[in-house]
Amino acid sequence: MTDAAQRVTIADVARTAGVSVPTVSKVLNHRADVSSDTRERVQQAITSHGYRRRTRSGRPRAALVDLVVAELDSPYFLEVLTGAEQAAARAGVGLVVTSAHGHEPRGGDWLATLTARRSSGIVMVVSVFDSSTLARLADLATPLVLLDPVGGSDPTLPTVGATNWSGGLAATEHLLSLGHRRVAVITGPPELVCSQERLEGYRAAMGRAGIAVDDDLVRFGDFQPDGGQRAAAELLALPDPPTAIFAGSDMQASGVYQEARAHGLRVPEDLSVVGFDDLRISRHLSPPLTTVRQPLAQMAAEAVRMTLEASRHGFTSPPPRLELATSLTLRDSTAALH
Amino acid sequence: MTDAAQRVTIADVARTAGVSVPTVSKVLNHRADVSSDTRERVQQAITSHGYRRRTRSGRPRAALVDLVVAELDSPYFLEVLTGAEQAAARAGVGLVVTSAHGHEPRGGDWLATLTARRSSGIVMVVSVFDSSTLARLADLATPLVLLDPVGGSDPTLPTVGATNWSGGLAATEHLLSLGHRRVAVITGPPELVCSQERLEGYRAAMGRAGIAVDDDLVRFGDFQPDGGQRAAAELLALPDPPTAIFAGSDMQASGVYQEARAHGLRVPEDLSVVGFDDLRISRHLSPPLTTVRQPLAQMAAEAVRMTLEASRHGFTSPPPRLELATSLTLRDSTAALH
Repeated sequence: MTDAAQRVTIADVARTAGVSVPTVSKVLNHRADVSSDTRERVQQAITSHGYRRRTRSGRPRAALVDLVVAELDSPYFLEVLTGAEQAAARAGVGLVVTSAHGHEPRGGDWLATLTARRSSGIVMVVSVFDSSTLARLADLATPLVLLDPVGGSDPTLPTVGATNWSGGLAATEHLLSLGHRRVAVITGPPELVCSQERLEGYRAAMGRAGIAVDDDLVRFGDFQPDGGQRAAAELLALPDPPTAIFAGSDMQASGVYQEARAHGLRVPEDLSVVGFDDLRISRHLSPPLTTVRQPLAQMAAEAVRMTLEASRHGFTSPPPRLELATSLTLRDSTAALH
Repeated sequence: MTDAAQRVTIADVARTAGVSVPTVSKVLNHRADVSSDTRERVQQAITSHGYRRRTRSGRPRAALVDLVVAELDSPYFLEVLTGAEQAAARAGVGLVVTSAHGHEPRGGDWLATLTARRSSGIVMVVSVFDSSTLARLADLATPLVLLDPVGGSDPTLPTVGATNWSGGLAATEHLLSLGHRRVAVITGPPELVCSQERLEGYRAAMGRAGIAVDDDLVRFGDFQPDGGQRAAAELLALPDPPTAIFAGSDMQASGVYQEARAHGLRVPEDLSVVGFDDLRISRHLSPPLTTVRQPLAQMAAEAVRMTLEASRHGFTSPPPRLELATSLTLRDSTAALH
């Protein structure tokens, strides 16, 4: 890199291309919300000026992909990690794992550490980050893919998710097919898109069966065992309790098992339970859990593959927004209403 | 680096220091099995020759620690990861996670990838690696710490483990104190030190209580649910089956739960069960599991801290071999013999 090249600013590039500074920034960041005409003009201006990013731009990217999660608090994450690690290994890059919220305040600034290592790509897993964090991430010029994305995420960012609505529908239709009518749902935090979609799938199945949804039977949890147990405690204390619960996640289902046991109820004889995720542990619960499988390992592998692909070629426009299929896995936690 | 310095070989250094080439290699690799006199002599020879490693030695180490596991197949690993990630974050380095056996044959050569990235330290988690892998790892000149070490590991390598023997003793004594006499044990694979130590703890407790160990009641599993279930099936089919099982790991305990259920046995009314690990999920099993807690997150954090410390100062001699304390966590899976 020459000194002259270093002195060229993003404003020079914007002036030459006849666009705004944020637009140049979008092109530099591989963002998809730029027309191909504009992108080409900006890239020509970048080339003619010999513009390079001021910070570390001479240094090649590391053979690493960053996987960022909010907290490492669930076996859910183990499935994600398995798929992400395999995809990284196939590409010959290392997978760096960061828990963003897991170690405040002594954890230091994870974003500064992430910035310094100049990975080839970043995959962020279902969680809510504040807007200043997202802005700093966008500014890294590292391709970013959201896995199991939250609501209100930037529509120009590529995402990989699962067919949550169909999964909620299938879980509920399975319980209805067994004769259950008092079917409850415990979904995740209301702000998450996957929670909303699973609940909508439940509502659709109930509607198709001609059953009005009783609001008492709709609960929100935290996708963890405690949330499932709390919601189950409320449901089982109702004057007319449910005979079946779609628990929204496998971990919430384990909490429902605990609460059923505390009430002296047997699963599935007295209460049918369906999970969501199909974690490795779920076939080893007592009883083995009937659940909606989402292919978490495959989703994570796709996300890693997409970000590495984009680090070489940029994202396509519009950006990829992948939804992998869910499927019902029948085990022993559901039975016909008697 | 000058050309002259590059042309100096490890043999020149050995000749000047009056030691063998392997001894110089040990000093370069921060190994502890070198006397401080010899180490000093070798280091003087290195300095006087201006010797540097031929490969990449000019490049500083990356702000990364490598965590290498055999497979990402158990929630056990989630606890390890939580502690390792926290320790890495505190040190401002990234944690790279590799599953060594998880993705053959398409995974490529994980060791080549690991070598290329020149991490500051490596932590290897309980597993058996062949001697050529261990030799290549030693040759990296990256400080290596074994977590939950296996049998026959190089005594000059630093390790972090738990007091497995005391844990096995405490689990068995707890069952004996509840009046059980037919107490079975399912330990892990016989080649692992932790399996052997837990079993020896069981034997010691039985001996102290004056109970001869019935070999029919001693089984080996794989530390996974399937192994626990298989062993429990054998135990419960005995003419005089046990009334209590020390399951050796929490995952094996979940397999014992499954098998008890298949036999129509209630836990703890008909069968008491104790685990080992205290994974996050174990308090959410039905019933919540009584288990021996080993501080996996803390063990992993110590291992990361040790390897980063050694990357700056080398290992102390003799190398640190840490054992953190286990403790019994009482929940609802054990009851008095009736």
